Amino acid sequence: MSKEITSRAADYSQWYNDLVLKGELADYSAVRGCMVIKPYGFALWENMRDALDKMFKDTGHVNAYFPLFIPKNFLSKEAAHVEGFAKECAVVTHYRLKNDPNGGGVVVDPEAKLEEELIVRPTSETIIWNTYKDWIQSYRDLPLLINQWANVVRWEMRTRLFLRTAEFLWQEGHTAHATKEEAIEETEKMLDVYATFAEEFMAVPVIKGVKTESERFAGAENTYCIEALMQDGKALQAGTSHFLGQNFAKAFDVKFSNKENQLEYVWATSWGVSTRLVGALVMAHSDDQGLILPPKIAPLQVVIVPIYKGDEQKAQIGVKVDEIIKELKALGIRVKYDDNDNARPGWKFAEYEMKGVPVRLAIGARDLEKNVVEVARRDTKEKNTVSLDGIAGYVQQLLADIQQNMFNKAKLYRDEHITKADSWDEFEKLLDEKGGFISAHWDGTAETEEAIKEKTKATIRCIPLNNSQEEGKCILTGKSSSQRVLFARAY
Amino acid sequence: MSKEITSRAADYSQWYNDLVLKGELADYSAVRGCMVIKPYGFALWENMRDALDKMFKDTGHVNAYFPLFIPKNFLSKEAAHVEGFAKECAVVTHYRLKNDPNGGGVVVDPEAKLEEELIVRPTSETIIWNTYKDWIQSYRDLPLLINQWANVVRWEMRTRLFLRTAEFLWQEGHTAHATKEEAIEETEKMLDVYATFAEEFMAVPVIKGVKTESERFAGAENTYCIEALMQDGKALQAGTSHFLGQNFAKAFDVKFSNKENQLEYVWATSWGVSTRLVGALVMAHSDDQGLILPPKIAPLQVVIVPIYKGDEQKAQIGVKVDEIIKELKALGIRVKYDDNDNARPGWKFAEYEMKGVPVRLAIGARDLEKNVVEVARRDTKEKNTVSLDGIAGYVQQLLADIQQNMFNKAKLYRDEHITKADSWDEFEKLLDEKGGFISAHWDGTAETEEAIKEKTKATIRCIPLNNSQEEGKCILTGKSSSQRVLFARAY
Repeated sequence: MSKEITSRAADYSQWYNDLVLKGELADYSAVRGCMVIKPYGFALWENMRDALDKMFKDTGHVNAYFPLFIPKNFLSKEAAHVEGFAKECAVVTHYRLKNDPNGGGVVVDPEAKLEEELIVRPTSETIIWNTYKDWIQSYRDLPLLINQWANVVRWEMRTRLFLRTAEFLWQEGHTAHATKEEAIEETEKMLDVYATFAEEFMAVPVIKGVKTESERFAGAENTYCIEALMQDGKALQAGTSHFLGQNFAKAFDVKFSNKENQLEYVWATSWGVSTRLVGALVMAHSDDQGLILPPKIAPLQVVIVPIYKGDEQKAQIGVKVDEIIKELKALGIRVKYDDNDNARPGWKFAEYEMKGVPVRLAIGARDLEKNVVEVARRDTKEKNTVSLDGIAGYVQQLLADIQQNMFNKAKLYRDEHITKADSWDEFEKLLDEKGGFISAHWDGTAETEEAIKEKTKATIRCIPLNNSQEEGKCILTGKSSSQRVLFARAY
Repeated sequence: MSKEITSRAADYSQWYNDLVLKGELADYSAVRGCMVIKPYGFALWENMRDALDKMFKDTGHVNAYFPLFIPKNFLSKEAAHVEGFAKECAVVTHYRLKNDPNGGGVVVDPEAKLEEELIVRPTSETIIWNTYKDWIQSYRDLPLLINQWANVVRWEMRTRLFLRTAEFLWQEGHTAHATKEEAIEETEKMLDVYATFAEEFMAVPVIKGVKTESERFAGAENTYCIEALMQDGKALQAGTSHFLGQNFAKAFDVKFSNKENQLEYVWATSWGVSTRLVGALVMAHSDDQGLILPPKIAPLQVVIVPIYKGDEQKAQIGVKVDEIIKELKALGIRVKYDDNDNARPGWKFAEYEMKGVPVRLAIGARDLEKNVVEVARRDTKEKNTVSLDGIAGYVQQLLADIQQNMFNKAKLYRDEHITKADSWDEFEKLLDEKGGFISAHWDGTAETEEAIKEKTKATIRCIPLNNSQEEGKCILTGKSSSQRVLFARAY
């Protein structure tokens, strides 16, 4: 496969696909809309997952595992959930194959039809709340703070690697509480966890807010979200945290006896992020040479490439590199030495740039004599010749600098792309010419929101938390408004 | 729920179910044959998974993720695989629901029928080898050493928590090699990894061997296995590693050009262990008071229970316990302080015995005066009064002793339950009265194997690796035999 990448300017969408495929994050599969996450992409996801998992556990959550299948009738139990949730689901109707009597391989056994169809989980509120019914009797059983790492399936018509796939990996937290206040606090706490993760690990700045009523999760009383901005000026929802009220408790009859021994319905939250975050990561930072991965979650943080002629030089360099690797590993740095004879240094440089490895060390015979090494950073492409004395500490600091620089750069871009619009013309012009978030007044009705979406494909990404209140007029209808909201075209 | 456990003597099978349910490892679900893995059980599985994952990575493997669904025609491609593999699979036939026009909730949309049915993966050889076709061109692409952690579904008719469920969690390694020798070496290496994991982490001794032809994985040229013995004298297959020859490479046309630039088919292995291991762990060690978990993978290694009257005593004990916890955590020990006022110490003791926590510390006001603590170990139920000076080191050593003692005890039992039988009467009597592995001569034919199975329900668990060769006569047919094999009734 050619390692040429389409430039962002030429075709942003193709650039993204090139990066995912040629950066070896994922591949298409034989199953419509499903992807294969390749080892390099999966290592990235593992680092993201492990960092999130630690944050969940540090905030008191435990993991569990619920069934892949949901009985069809469960999806009918919560009225808003059934009404609002997308119906594109994989449906299991049979439980057995048999050998084709005509010799055509295997066929579905028509005798093995399920009495009730099973739905491959698109999300697990229903099966989990049906289980919680058995687990919750008393206030002593609360709160229940459970998370699940799982695969889910939504039969999307138009799919894109990581961003929208029929099957994807995610985590879904499902918590149960004795009071409304506590459930809202949990919803907000997990939004904060997501925002912290996005900013500190992914180096992607996010805006915290709440969705409008029409963009809420089906069955939620309030949906909080974090919104990120991609380099093409489109927004991407990077995580959601839902306050579910007592809706699922009522649908599945989950009550607890409170301290006064009275029965009350349980309060609920759910919150999730998915492999979609990998797509966000790629689009937020990378350039026309390939991926740029933030050091904290990069599968490989440092690659060392030897530059040599002949086995003797290679051996000499190898001895020194062993020392360097030992020092780097002692600091917990993920490092690889690529002394493969089958590729030239220049090819290797391009390869690791493509893969977004944050730091590259190149070391030749003359460097060895001078006790130096060439250090290249992926984010800015700067190169420096650095003394080998104390190189590990230098690299450690450099990784921290890269992490911070990536965040700063993304934040600068994001901040420059939050623009106020005070008229419809301005709004449309900004959308078409500049992109990004547009802060504008809206009259608060679903009709206007829908009309704006139809005219421009822009949606209200969120009403920012702690949004400043100001009087104004809706950009579309001119009706009065008490606050600006953030619009954008989005993934 | 009552915490009473059925005794092993009264009803072994019920004892097992009681432990799993009351020990809070898992629960039944609303979906036939699928279980819910509860937080305590999932924490145990996470520890097992993490230990295995590290061993896989230390032996050069990487993780990836392949689709949940397999196109039906893939299952027809490898002749032995299609012939031999169980046909009890979940089949997806539709991709959309819709609101029932008659108001009955959601129904399957008949218009959304898939052109080709999708099978929920029962194992992933087919979809993975179909993918490898694109990833392997040259000997430089080999070996490919990939593992996947995933859920799989096999529509078992009779299910038991952990031991046999319709959906289960597992890992499946799928490797590709340039030579037969290298593939066989890999197959054996992974069997060793499994055996080491079972013995060193689960404290379950295992016998390494190969399956007879009729017990081989469908599509394998050779199936290696580890076999463990449960306390009721029944065997349990705890892991398998398959040498697949070139069967899947041929079925999916996966060739590579070797160093001489000639095209050859690739050699394959696959290997897996599943959440079934949790069932093996429970049945190998536990007693009539509850679970007994090996320290290395126990979710909680130490529980501390205060014995106090009034808040002042509780506070005094709390101060000391904080110190102890700090010392224990510094040694990496997983510890919990249960100072819940709602339960008496005796209730707590029983609860943590039920849950199999390896070490319990109980500390009262008088202990505090004497600077001692009562240390109880779960495996032998011994109690000792121990000085608080150096308590962390004492506990650390005790955890190691418990781990070793559990293995020794299980091994002693296992070794006492490998018995030679030299006649059919002896064979049947041993099976019915003693159980365990029976080492007996077999004439090597599938017919005899099947006849023995029909008469006694005993199967050939394995032909041990490095089996000693000796002349003998088949216990059933009297025909000549060159070696003994291990029979047992099995889970």
